[in-house]
Amino acid sequence: MASVTTLPNPSAPARPTEWVLTLSCPDRPGIVHAVSGALAEHGGNITESQQFGDPVSGLFFLRMQVESASDRAELEAAIAEVAGRFAMTWELDVVGRPVRTLLMVSKAAHCLVDLLYRERSGQAPIDVVGVVGNHTDLADHAAFYGKPFHHVPVTAATKGAAEDRLRELVRELDVELVVLARYMQILSDGLCRDLSGRVINIHHSFLPSFKGARPYAQAHDRGVKLIGATSHYVTGDLDEGPIIEQDVERVDHSRAVTDLVSLGEDVERRTLARAVRWHAEHRVLLNGHRTVVFH
Amino acid sequence: MASVTTLPNPSAPARPTEWVLTLSCPDRPGIVHAVSGALAEHGGNITESQQFGDPVSGLFFLRMQVESASDRAELEAAIAEVAGRFAMTWELDVVGRPVRTLLMVSKAAHCLVDLLYRERSGQAPIDVVGVVGNHTDLADHAAFYGKPFHHVPVTAATKGAAEDRLRELVRELDVELVVLARYMQILSDGLCRDLSGRVINIHHSFLPSFKGARPYAQAHDRGVKLIGATSHYVTGDLDEGPIIEQDVERVDHSRAVTDLVSLGEDVERRTLARAVRWHAEHRVLLNGHRTVVFH
Amino acid sequence: MASVTTLPNPSAPARPTEWVLTLSCPDRPGIVHAVSGALAEHGGNITESQQFGDPVSGLFFLRMQVESASDRAELEAAIAEVAGRFAMTWELDVVGRPVRTLLMVSKAAHCLVDLLYRERSGQAPIDVVGVVGNHTDLADHAAFYGKPFHHVPVTAATKGAAEDRLRELVRELDVELVVLARYMQILSDGLCRDLSGRVINIHHSFLPSFKGARPYAQAHDRGVKLIGATSHYVTGDLDEGPIIEQDVERVDHSRAVTDLVSLGEDVERRTLARAVRWHAEHRVLLNGHRTVVFH
Amino acid sequence: MASVTTLPNPSAPARPTEWVLTLSCPDRPGIVHAVSGALAEHGGNITESQQFGDPVSGLFFLRMQVESASDRAELEAAIAEVAGRFAMTWELDVVGRPVRTLLMVSKAAHCLVDLLYRERSGQAPIDVVGVVGNHTDLADHAAFYGKPFHHVPVTAATKGAAEDRLRELVRELDVELVVLARYMQILSDGLCRDLSGRVINIHHSFLPSFKGARPYAQAHDRGVKLIGATSHYVTGDLDEGPIIEQDVERVDHSRAVTDLVSLGEDVERRTLARAVRWHAEHRVLLNGHRTVVFH
Repeated sequence: MASVTTLPNPSAPARPTEWVLTLSCPDRPGIVHAVSGALAEHGGNITESQQFGDPVSGLFFLRMQVESASDRAELEAAIAEVAGRFAMTWELDVVGRPVRTLLMVSKAAHCLVDLLYRERSGQAPIDVVGVVGNHTDLADHAAFYGKPFHHVPVTAATKGAAEDRLRELVRELDVELVVLARYMQILSDGLCRDLSGRVINIHHSFLPSFKGARPYAQAHDRGVKLIGATSHYVTGDLDEGPIIEQDVERVDHSRAVTDLVSLGEDVERRTLARAVRWHAEHRVLLNGHRTVVFH
Repeated sequence: MASVTTLPNPSAPARPTEWVLTLSCPDRPGIVHAVSGALAEHGGNITESQQFGDPVSGLFFLRMQVESASDRAELEAAIAEVAGRFAMTWELDVVGRPVRTLLMVSKAAHCLVDLLYRERSGQAPIDVVGVVGNHTDLADHAAFYGKPFHHVPVTAATKGAAEDRLRELVRELDVELVVLARYMQILSDGLCRDLSGRVINIHHSFLPSFKGARPYAQAHDRGVKLIGATSHYVTGDLDEGPIIEQDVERVDHSRAVTDLVSLGEDVERRTLARAVRWHAEHRVLLNGHRTVVFH
Repeated sequence: MASVTTLPNPSAPARPTEWVLTLSCPDRPGIVHAVSGALAEHGGNITESQQFGDPVSGLFFLRMQVESASDRAELEAAIAEVAGRFAMTWELDVVGRPVRTLLMVSKAAHCLVDLLYRERSGQAPIDVVGVVGNHTDLADHAAFYGKPFHHVPVTAATKGAAEDRLRELVRELDVELVVLARYMQILSDGLCRDLSGRVINIHHSFLPSFKGARPYAQAHDRGVKLIGATSHYVTGDLDEGPIIEQDVERVDHSRAVTDLVSLGEDVERRTLARAVRWHAEHRVLLNGHRTVVFH
Repeated sequence: MASVTTLPNPSAPARPTEWVLTLSCPDRPGIVHAVSGALAEHGGNITESQQFGDPVSGLFFLRMQVESASDRAELEAAIAEVAGRFAMTWELDVVGRPVRTLLMVSKAAHCLVDLLYRERSGQAPIDVVGVVGNHTDLADHAAFYGKPFHHVPVTAATKGAAEDRLRELVRELDVELVVLARYMQILSDGLCRDLSGRVINIHHSFLPSFKGARPYAQAHDRGVKLIGATSHYVTGDLDEGPIIEQDVERVDHSRAVTDLVSLGEDVERRTLARAVRWHAEHRVLLNGHRTVVFH
């Protein structure tokens, strides 16, 4: 699938870069042809493409990976021209560029350990630039993976200050993605709004079942035969944000609440890991209060 | 695993029958020993045994399959003696005896077809003694499997009469189990009470998510990534009865509500089929508003 | 997503047809743009599109659904022009057109019943034009669904004649797809070749485990913890044809071979049903001895 | 479920210990009654019990958890008496006692990290007494969890010496269980025999598919739609040992071999973790070349 474009400088042929383009716009004929045309003019070779037209919202969603030796400015100009005609919201990135990520934790280690291990082993294109804990229990795990640990305790009295500190970290560390990796605090409405579409949470139930506190105790009491986990974007509306991924694990009557908590760790960590990877690979697009996931 | 009991009539040695005993009682030491002792005295050979002590309710549950050449009266007398000492609720049946079952349907055929096919192919120990429909759409399926079809239409005005007819059928046909195989009517509180523990429903969502009407439309709107089905005993408290079995199927953003309905058929029918089989095999015991399922 | 093409006869505006185009060709830049361009010229609105470039074989695969008011001849001409330039193998069909299908069975009913039920309930775009059985056991099921049943017994001596009869039926009934729905006979090499890519089988194991006869007995003996089923195109190389779909079911030590057979029915029928549906929806493309499945 | 036995010394009432008894013997009537009787005489309260009679091998298997204030010698004497009568093979242990475990690794970290994390978080009753690597890549992970790391390189020339060193470690560290956590060396027949039933391996395929080297490359070439992992006891017969647990993950045509390797990590680590936990909880009994798993 080598690109056969004419390169700007034949004496030093650039290796083509692989780009990922995501966009959404009102659905109408000609979108794919226009986009593929704009890319073809820059020697782009489409290596992956997925699309979805939502008959309910009337919106069209596209994700393309394209190899091109053109530079970012050229590509952006070409896309911008098409985007203007179709009223597109769009984003261009280099495939595999690690997304600057801040992990927020409390005391439970499983999601943190899993994400740090996946970063190190190349299973998720993230660059964890720091770990924030409202407790210090997990500082050693952060240290092992060479990550700065920021202790930001939260009490009713200090909640405002804690969020200020969080905003500061997001700014200073140039954070693109915040992952609540079993962070047991609720973010304020204001912060949710400011970081909209950039905060991923893992809820330890199969939403919308068992919203709120102690979902495994609720699940046990209801006698469900499967427990689940839900990874979603955080909005001001608690446990109501757009769902990215869900998974379940079978349980039976013999499981106590503590067993559910323990079994749940596996499904939580793999559900969150998928959501984080797909987000970092630009596979998740927002469609109102729902998501389009091109995996 | 041949039984070595001394048989009452050596000239015509009875082949041992396989019995299934289910019981529950307050948990305390010595239950298994007492029960196994009573059975051993009647030459019983335990071929399958499962137990559960619930630390929350303090109740103990047991299901045993036992081969014995003793007759029912002898076994019942032996068990009754132990049961008295331990305050047991118990039931004795012959393994594999088909349970007299009434299927109730509306217009959707998938659960009906599946259950009738499983009965015929020996995959569920049920004897479907009739099919009740509030519409006539499925009469041909009933006829193909040689089952009497009873058309009992339901309107707001005739609901009482319809339930009277249902009670009559249950009585006349000596029905042990009623299965709501996508029967789109709600039973009255009184009927739920009278048939308590003998009516199984399939709800087309992963309860407690999406109770009530049009669960697939609700699921689509919420943007879930798995759809599910829940089979449960019917109580007066709609969609709140003890859960017997649940299962899920993966979906993605591209699925319309009609796709969910269609995909959901598979998960509904297999979830209901398991619940019906386990009930008919005496594998489901009630533990308050939860179930113990020995599968 | 209304099509905005100029219609040939404004006084009787044709409703656009939804077409499905599948193609494969050597991978190189510009394919998507060329195809989408040819379709756009005929007012085509792409409603679904999936592609895959295989770095191993160097082949590119595309499946597009497109709404267009143009007639078949116009579309075919447009595609043919592009296809010539890119050395494409391609096929155009109307979305949802039922594929003329012949079901072949022996004595096991589950796959037959399932496929006939799915056809009737609109879950698979097939038109079952006949059922062939080497035994007559399943004639009643065929009759219930209004399908002609052809009894074609097979013995070592009559195998050639039986295959002649089968070829005749394929010709007479204009059969596009043959489904071996637990047909317990092996087709000759010659017939496999003649019907290449048009015969789908369900093998009752997770291939390549347990090829050949009595796979559940083999699985039981090996003590596996999951049993599976594999749906694949039939080639002369027994159980080695391109895999379309596989699925599994959990089992444990307590299951006898007969239990595995019974449990296996569920996984067989759903695996085969998916393969048949995807084939009939033109979602399965051959890539050497592997498949590309755009589901 | 408090034990109501009369305690030997009322002035210092011992808290009852929870014991786990596993046994197998030729199947015949009276086993459960005899065992439960022997335990009842020592004030034992059975809290969990599972059994299986294998009609093929004619063997009976039992696992019981029982609370008793009696000491080990008393219980062992009581069980030994019954065991003699029924020709039982049996084992008694304290529930939850950590099993002394040696982990063997090469370069892949995922199984090692997972097992060490599960030990620390209390999800598997193991006491990892050391990590052996034929490479030093994973020494840092061992160090983080405070485990001694033993570098035992293996070449064709040094294989014998390496196995001597391993035997020495097993002896010195009093190792009960050896886990090959993606250890890429084959143990000699002699060592397999000596450690029979005490070595668990994870094979990165759904056995018996894709035995031997590079299973993911084999799986990719065959075009399977699910990849799997198999955890089994190690015998001299490579990849043929008794299977403890298997699991699978869905893949599609777009996955390269490297993707399968990466996706496979998840299924490998959870499959191995379950096998190790069940073994350490005395839930796995050998039944010839198959296993009985009471989970």
